[in-house]
Amino acid sequence: MEQPQPGFEPLTPTAFLRRSTHVHAESIAVVDGDRTFTYAQFGARSLALTGVLAAYGVGPGDRVAALCTNSHVMLELHNAVPMRGAVLVPLNFRLAVDELVYIVDHSGARLLVATDELAAVARAVAERTGARLLVAGEAADEYESAMAGAAPATVPVDDERGLLAINYTSGTTGRPKGVMYHHRGAYLQALAMAFHASLSSDSRYLWTLPMFHCNGWCFTWAVTAAGGTHVCLRAVDPALIWRRLRADGITHLSGAPAVLRLIADADGAAGPRLPSPVRVGTGGAPPSPALLKRFEALNMSVQHLYGLTETFGPIVVNDWQSRWDAGSPETVARLKARQGVGNVIATPVRVVDAEGRDVPADARTSGEIAVRGNNVMLGYYRDEAATAAAVPDGWFRTGDLAVRHPDGYIEITDRRKDVIISGGENIASVEVERVLDGHPAVLESAVVGVPDDRWGEVPVAYVSVRPGCAVSPDELVAFVREHIAGFKVPKAFVFGEIPKTSTGKLQKHVLRQRARE
Amino acid sequence: MEQPQPGFEPLTPTAFLRRSTHVHAESIAVVDGDRTFTYAQFGARSLALTGVLAAYGVGPGDRVAALCTNSHVMLELHNAVPMRGAVLVPLNFRLAVDELVYIVDHSGARLLVATDELAAVARAVAERTGARLLVAGEAADEYESAMAGAAPATVPVDDERGLLAINYTSGTTGRPKGVMYHHRGAYLQALAMAFHASLSSDSRYLWTLPMFHCNGWCFTWAVTAAGGTHVCLRAVDPALIWRRLRADGITHLSGAPAVLRLIADADGAAGPRLPSPVRVGTGGAPPSPALLKRFEALNMSVQHLYGLTETFGPIVVNDWQSRWDAGSPETVARLKARQGVGNVIATPVRVVDAEGRDVPADARTSGEIAVRGNNVMLGYYRDEAATAAAVPDGWFRTGDLAVRHPDGYIEITDRRKDVIISGGENIASVEVERVLDGHPAVLESAVVGVPDDRWGEVPVAYVSVRPGCAVSPDELVAFVREHIAGFKVPKAFVFGEIPKTSTGKLQKHVLRQRARE
Repeated sequence: MEQPQPGFEPLTPTAFLRRSTHVHAESIAVVDGDRTFTYAQFGARSLALTGVLAAYGVGPGDRVAALCTNSHVMLELHNAVPMRGAVLVPLNFRLAVDELVYIVDHSGARLLVATDELAAVARAVAERTGARLLVAGEAADEYESAMAGAAPATVPVDDERGLLAINYTSGTTGRPKGVMYHHRGAYLQALAMAFHASLSSDSRYLWTLPMFHCNGWCFTWAVTAAGGTHVCLRAVDPALIWRRLRADGITHLSGAPAVLRLIADADGAAGPRLPSPVRVGTGGAPPSPALLKRFEALNMSVQHLYGLTETFGPIVVNDWQSRWDAGSPETVARLKARQGVGNVIATPVRVVDAEGRDVPADARTSGEIAVRGNNVMLGYYRDEAATAAAVPDGWFRTGDLAVRHPDGYIEITDRRKDVIISGGENIASVEVERVLDGHPAVLESAVVGVPDDRWGEVPVAYVSVRPGCAVSPDELVAFVREHIAGFKVPKAFVFGEIPKTSTGKLQKHVLRQRARE
Repeated sequence: MEQPQPGFEPLTPTAFLRRSTHVHAESIAVVDGDRTFTYAQFGARSLALTGVLAAYGVGPGDRVAALCTNSHVMLELHNAVPMRGAVLVPLNFRLAVDELVYIVDHSGARLLVATDELAAVARAVAERTGARLLVAGEAADEYESAMAGAAPATVPVDDERGLLAINYTSGTTGRPKGVMYHHRGAYLQALAMAFHASLSSDSRYLWTLPMFHCNGWCFTWAVTAAGGTHVCLRAVDPALIWRRLRADGITHLSGAPAVLRLIADADGAAGPRLPSPVRVGTGGAPPSPALLKRFEALNMSVQHLYGLTETFGPIVVNDWQSRWDAGSPETVARLKARQGVGNVIATPVRVVDAEGRDVPADARTSGEIAVRGNNVMLGYYRDEAATAAAVPDGWFRTGDLAVRHPDGYIEITDRRKDVIISGGENIASVEVERVLDGHPAVLESAVVGVPDDRWGEVPVAYVSVRPGCAVSPDELVAFVREHIAGFKVPKAFVFGEIPKTSTGKLQKHVLRQRARE
């Protein structure tokens, strides 16, 4: 073996488990239902799992697909697969079998690891792809049996920019693309998340965010880096979330605003204010002033984050300045709704025009968010054309439109393809949605453009009404008119549930389709 | 220029100022006497300083020596010099002119930047070395004049393992050696310090630690990463420290135990308990139980750290486990005196025997602390022989002897060369000193071995008595005998001040010399 360099070690996020296995050996690393594992156990099990992977024929560079709920299994895979030198392919368990088959085939994974709740789907996928299957948690627990006798079979990371994981985008349109994560990026992003969330060995992180989504925004590794406790949630069950919040001293959780609304509207929220503060990270859509207020009342402070699968999750954070606390509730809510600034390890985030030039920081000129740096993907797996299109000049184009405020904080105005152009005027659907969401009867809303002979496009609102409430289109029109320009007021309202991706993003293309029909 | 890679940017600690200049633009970055600078100003000044450096003939790779107190100048140099692609050589201003001349000559620095208090010494050094001199803060302020008209002249970092700084060891024996720091190491160490100290944009860091020492343990960059405030202290003046502590909302400071004792014994400490907690990092020697107790009473919590110039400062941290709080005061003090475990970005720290094999974690078997990884130096500047001797097998040997406790935490028993071998028994001078320091009349102590015909060596204690107290050798003998084995009891006591290096390390070689005479 080569002589190690004295001042160098490749960065890999599994280094954090290596450290916490020893430093926090006796502390609880993982709570998953009735099972708990100390860091000593978590570390030993992850090492044993490298041996299991080897026994299942997984070698360096091989892809291992994971169809797992938020569980100790998924956390173990997040360490064992990279420690084996292999590549993790986390699967979104809300996808249909056809979609899963596509991803497993495309990634070339030859092993699929599943948790028991997903065993039936996993069997179907394994059968159609020819992948070997390893199921954890069933009566004859293959996973535990294999672990029992396994000796570690680790392979050191020799290239920190080597492939760590392929995270398939949830795909609001078209085929999912495989976003290639590298060890260095996940390591640095995990440190950034630990820093911004002030994680420590006293942290208890509740897994309301799917671990399959951007590797749980890298908190799978960040919580481990801090030596905190992963409190797994196999399903987003509001009653269970509240039991955990009230009984388990939860300090942190993350989730899309839809998940936060679920928490805020659950029966459990009716109890007393939480005794200790909980830090909540949210992304995917700005938290509404109503939601922020509700969470503050529950002793939960919400931080707005922004990122994509391509950026290891939150590359942008609403880095809060204490002096802003002095503002009026409206000002605070407005500042909290901004996406923010590049995180501590991010290369400064840009907002650029069509020619790739920075837009002025005038809070008005909209441009596309463009990023590069250590927490940006290597590219799309086996799709050079898509990579080249997304990264035309070294800067990854996010597809999100934003303005830059004079203080440098950015605020998303819309998805590039979600801008509604009506009578030559741009309508930011986000702006209209934010107003609608402020109405007391509105649970959530989505605004899309539909073709119109006279105006080109007109905005149409899909509205989900809060249980026990009622509201008429006329009332909503009047409400919206109080806040924004008349041309932005939706021309029609459709009441009902709003379709979302598994990660809580509004599926506007579905709504557009419906509106056209 | 080469197309930037989408998922890569070289790590350099000046990236943190680049970020905070924008994110924390309006926040106070630096307080230095009556001057304060916002991050916007700190960033702009550091950029302008790159232009000044260029005008003074400094190009990429050139060394720039800094003979500066803890000041805005030193902080600006910590950013401007690397942003110019040059190499910072911080000088210990407590050294004699001859020593400074040696270092400037050895480093090859052609420019010396000094603050006004040190101008006379700097002039002498510049004259003898032929280096150009730039003095900040004098009546005709060359530094400010040059800054006024300067346009930035930055050079991007192309190799993150390139030379960032040369930190000359304070040298308890022999010629100082130039420890080569790399950008990557300082970046990661700064993140680690920000994480372990829980720095945030609300932090106010008091500069009781010299910035020339391991780049202020990388807090020069860590505080900036967090967007906190650097509160400069141009001299370690206990009255001024207490004014800062009481009036300026200080949240963090660092220093050797000698500095902490100075703080604890100052008049200012007699006032009321501090209203907000202050986190104190200390290294160089274990904090005594008495000191820990005193600081707790002042609302200051002390964390023990361990490192060397070769390891970018603290590579080992006493990572505190909340459950330990439940222990008796004696147990807590004992646990707090341990050096601890590798920090969050460190490669696991080893304790090895003479053959390079790990010693058992039995709290008894002593070995030498050996380290490698991203926060270890590249080597000694222009001294391949010394580098090879210090890093015989890829692991840097620290020269410090330690045991590993069963929980993995390490505890230093002695400097390798400070072990006293008396009648075939090893005596850890640290152990004897700890007992002596527990005597109410003892301010501090140092124990060394002196040659003895019968025993080979015997321990001799140098004792500095607390002002207003008195103690006899017999009393000390009786006191020590209560706590440790008879053969460890010093055979002689010498009362008086104890010689220390500028960074507060006991200069045992001086005492040994004296004892022999």
